[in-house]
Amino acid sequence: MTETTAHAPVSAEQATREQELTDRVVASFEDAPDARLKELMQALTRHLHAFIREVRLTEAEWEKAIAFLTAAGHITDDRRQEFILLSDVLGASMQTIAVNNPAAGNATEATVFGPFFVETAPEIPNGGDIAGGASGQPAWVEGTVTGTHGNPIPNARIEVWEADEDGFYDVQYDDARVAGRAHLYSDQKGNYAFWGLTPAPYPIPHDGPVGEMLAATNRSPVRASHLHFMVTASGYRTLVTHIFVEGDPQLDIGDSVFGVKDSLIKPFDTQRVGIPTPDGRDLGEQQWARTRFDIVLAPAN
Amino acid sequence: MTETTAHAPVSAEQATREQELTDRVVASFEDAPDARLKELMQALTRHLHAFIREVRLTEAEWEKAIAFLTAAGHITDDRRQEFILLSDVLGASMQTIAVNNPAAGNATEATVFGPFFVETAPEIPNGGDIAGGASGQPAWVEGTVTGTHGNPIPNARIEVWEADEDGFYDVQYDDARVAGRAHLYSDQKGNYAFWGLTPAPYPIPHDGPVGEMLAATNRSPVRASHLHFMVTASGYRTLVTHIFVEGDPQLDIGDSVFGVKDSLIKPFDTQRVGIPTPDGRDLGEQQWARTRFDIVLAPAN
Repeated sequence: MTETTAHAPVSAEQATREQELTDRVVASFEDAPDARLKELMQALTRHLHAFIREVRLTEAEWEKAIAFLTAAGHITDDRRQEFILLSDVLGASMQTIAVNNPAAGNATEATVFGPFFVETAPEIPNGGDIAGGASGQPAWVEGTVTGTHGNPIPNARIEVWEADEDGFYDVQYDDARVAGRAHLYSDQKGNYAFWGLTPAPYPIPHDGPVGEMLAATNRSPVRASHLHFMVTASGYRTLVTHIFVEGDPQLDIGDSVFGVKDSLIKPFDTQRVGIPTPDGRDLGEQQWARTRFDIVLAPAN
Repeated sequence: MTETTAHAPVSAEQATREQELTDRVVASFEDAPDARLKELMQALTRHLHAFIREVRLTEAEWEKAIAFLTAAGHITDDRRQEFILLSDVLGASMQTIAVNNPAAGNATEATVFGPFFVETAPEIPNGGDIAGGASGQPAWVEGTVTGTHGNPIPNARIEVWEADEDGFYDVQYDDARVAGRAHLYSDQKGNYAFWGLTPAPYPIPHDGPVGEMLAATNRSPVRASHLHFMVTASGYRTLVTHIFVEGDPQLDIGDSVFGVKDSLIKPFDTQRVGIPTPDGRDLGEQQWARTRFDIVLAPAN
């Protein structure tokens, strides 16, 4: 079914009544002492009313919306944040990222931060291993950090984190393990490399109202496989992004939080057993993969 | 401060990225099996993204919005419904009412239902008293119930309910009292009358996040004084409305939930002590008021 519902036309008298109501609510914020808060509330009012008027929201649908928000509030606690999930699956999180990371020449595109970053991830040397015992196929990740003019950026701090092959981050286990996360620094030529894991897909939590909405609309809760990066360097805009795995079927099905940019999809080339590793690491009979991610930072502001 | 914040112009490349993201989220709902749900989610996405893009929402503001919704969810329980309050103070409840009660000739305008209706209010005879011990100035309310062609509607069921002079409904007290509410029926000529109370102002609950928002934007939480009506008659659209008190200062300050329509503001004429009551009731040394509310019902559908 692709047709949308046709709505009966609204009379001029009715349209006037509806517009007057919107105008009155907008005017109610006119005396807000903070100009930015006033702008936000007035714009929110206009867009919210436009939505209600456009779809001719029924009272039963309004009641369902209230019940949805109530259920989202009640499932939310210190570990579960259903409102962020809601924002994510509506693309609102990603749109906020987009607005705050405007295109800047060939600078690498940003994507969602996600809930699994940890401030205190261990430092590893350039070329070190982030796995910390996390299960999965080893993946050699290498690249450069440069500015938009191609200038190498030495000593950029590179935070990386990812799920294990079962789709879980270390913080989702109860045993306080630290695994699949680390930080390192680019060298004097702006080069970096590390051993990570070939990323695996996993679903966002979908046993709550957001999951019900996804099911009711035939949407997948699964995130495309990805490896998180946060790159900071003095004088440059902090970059929060992922790289995705070329060929991951979820890229066609659709990433549940809309984090994918074509420029962030990278080949993870599987290496036959026996091919020497870049740093001489002995992986025995284990297959491994390698990928390249050249990072370009936008200037600060 | 009345100026709004000026935003830097967005580059063509940036605008394309933002629009592509919105389009991708809209497309994600394309396979929703329910056509109406698809329409709602797609329209919600478009309006939500348009809001974020228009105001250039910052990540800190997005975090505040998540925290606001979380707090609203956590204060909501069986007795307190912060999401309905939020909908009310943004005029979304009233706009939903407006959309579902289109203008129909001279039919009486609808307004918000509110949280204080009770199904089991007692029946009183035409001309009876709804006060049930609730404190306040007695007010004689009379009028007719007709169709839009002036035809009297006999046996219309008229539910009326209101707060006492302290601004509280019976259900807000802990003692299970039933006061300030009743139902009656129009007579064979469509006439009705009852003794109620001259309505008093009261604030919506404002000790939660919605109250904080009202305070931060210099808005009053107080509702204009009003008396609730719900009128049902076979073959007519059910009317949910209030009447408001002409001269109530809150009408100028602004009703916190935007329920006021000019056509619903009625003079409550105070009667000097000693003036005979319409039905001979002896009010002793007590002042009383009288008002008239002629109700016109729209045809069903």
